[in-house]
Amino acid sequence: MRLSLLLLGTLAQVAVAAEPLSAWQPGVVRSTLLNFIAQVTEPDSDAYRPPAERIAVFDHDGTLIIEQPLLVQMAFVHERVRELAPAHPEWVELAPFDAVLAGNNAVLAQMGFRGTAALVNAAQAGISQAEFRAAVSRFLGQARHPRFEVVYPQLVYQPMLELIALLTASDFRVYIVSSGGIEFIRGLSESVYGVPRERVVASVMKYELREEDEALAVWRKSGFQSLNAGPFKVLNIDRHIGRRPVLAVGNSDGDLEMLSYTQAGPDTLAVLLRHDDAQREYAYADDSVRVLPVAAARNWLVVSMKKDFRQVFPTGSTGSIGGRS
Amino acid sequence: MRLSLLLLGTLAQVAVAAEPLSAWQPGVVRSTLLNFIAQVTEPDSDAYRPPAERIAVFDHDGTLIIEQPLLVQMAFVHERVRELAPAHPEWVELAPFDAVLAGNNAVLAQMGFRGTAALVNAAQAGISQAEFRAAVSRFLGQARHPRFEVVYPQLVYQPMLELIALLTASDFRVYIVSSGGIEFIRGLSESVYGVPRERVVASVMKYELREEDEALAVWRKSGFQSLNAGPFKVLNIDRHIGRRPVLAVGNSDGDLEMLSYTQAGPDTLAVLLRHDDAQREYAYADDSVRVLPVAAARNWLVVSMKKDFRQVFPTGSTGSIGGRS
Repeated sequence: MRLSLLLLGTLAQVAVAAEPLSAWQPGVVRSTLLNFIAQVTEPDSDAYRPPAERIAVFDHDGTLIIEQPLLVQMAFVHERVRELAPAHPEWVELAPFDAVLAGNNAVLAQMGFRGTAALVNAAQAGISQAEFRAAVSRFLGQARHPRFEVVYPQLVYQPMLELIALLTASDFRVYIVSSGGIEFIRGLSESVYGVPRERVVASVMKYELREEDEALAVWRKSGFQSLNAGPFKVLNIDRHIGRRPVLAVGNSDGDLEMLSYTQAGPDTLAVLLRHDDAQREYAYADDSVRVLPVAAARNWLVVSMKKDFRQVFPTGSTGSIGGRS
Repeated sequence: MRLSLLLLGTLAQVAVAAEPLSAWQPGVVRSTLLNFIAQVTEPDSDAYRPPAERIAVFDHDGTLIIEQPLLVQMAFVHERVRELAPAHPEWVELAPFDAVLAGNNAVLAQMGFRGTAALVNAAQAGISQAEFRAAVSRFLGQARHPRFEVVYPQLVYQPMLELIALLTASDFRVYIVSSGGIEFIRGLSESVYGVPRERVVASVMKYELREEDEALAVWRKSGFQSLNAGPFKVLNIDRHIGRRPVLAVGNSDGDLEMLSYTQAGPDTLAVLLRHDDAQREYAYADDSVRVLPVAAARNWLVVSMKKDFRQVFPTGSTGSIGGRS
């Protein structure tokens, strides 16, 4: 019994290596992705690009990781507010903190930019960058998703992990381009996605330089120096990377400009993930009303989570190869 | 004769490979650099860093390339103003353009931020990013330095090129961190320094997204979204790279914070280049009055161009190995 299990494990590993993107269902979507990578990397192909030009950009929330019922980073912000509440007794009766402390999900779901910014400033500013990184790390190691009851790093999409790994092995430089906070995403980028910290382009709070213990340190202030959403994703790609990507992957209206900008280059691929799998994840489309018709009109590669993901999460139990289910 | 020259060429190449940093004079500076790289990359060393942490940052003007009698980018700005002048007849009598068009070096040398910004806006904004890149490329291929009478890409420092190459071969990621304009420096980064475009952190003008020929393009506007000088070098290193460097190289007061921040980490190296070689380059120290005493007090590695550079420029005639003198 023990021997045959070991043998099975070995065979499974071989199967993964021999069959890339194995968490994707065989079909048009998977073969389009494989063909695209083959074309870009094959020197005799018309679509060939030298490694220097192989830039791939991925949105984060909803593209690489679950974003329902709440953005992972907003779960972190709420957790921080609860942690900091004892030092702020006034929060119990002060909006928007009262809604977090009372767990008033109806109010939280309707919260606009002003309220959200107040929570973000309270939770994420007025501390050093080092303190903030430690808080993110604690949260990601402990907090559990309300429905799946696992830590959030286990709720990334296995097919996307495989796509990132295949692109990296094919000499692409993979970037995460997100409207989320840059240091929050960096808490996941290397350990979970295998994407180096410097390849995260995201929103950035205001910083200042302070002397602490006779050494210069970065201090986080209220407000944003960069809100990396919509058209600003493109402008920040130009600022940070300085090249038009050849592949872009997104899932919502916030990715429309990034996908359009990428697609405008020659022999590029724009990919849009649809959340249509209420059973294994969630089904929603209210955040992609603008991008869906554009994707259809321009023939972007539209991915159905339900039909094209053979496996959703790394530890999922649905057809997992090498999973820990 | 022909054969012996060929043989000499071969031997010289072997000597370069066998003797890294050969454009540096043997001595304390060169051996400190070699020892530092050996320590960081040797797994048994206390100062060992895994490749992910091997970040090296270099200032640009005066650290990698000549900056006298004028910053290379200001020579470009002046050239652009002269090119654009026919469409702006009013410039002949309008400051600060009149000084550029009359070649009034005394006025240009005293020009403050306001005048410089007016020239920069006229020369570098109101065009697409693609147009700007083409203009930079033309300038770098044609414009010649007034004293050395060669194109500017030939006036980079050979010892620094070798240091960048050795660091890259040792799995460091080398970044250029400059107060100059990011797209101007990207005009040199890959072809001259071997530094990918995405590893340039520098000043950035305001951008907007425009639709051109039915495709989204980045458009350059007047003003700056980021002036990457002094403390902002550190804040932008944190934003762009997200890690404290282990090696920093600079030459002026504008690098003080970047050098201090780097040095505050464990087992790091801060390097300051002094321009003290009027014969082969220039001798000046008026831009490093704050940083020099700090470098002395904190035992940073101070490099004398005169004593520590065996060869200054790639095509220089002083002790050049493999040079085209």
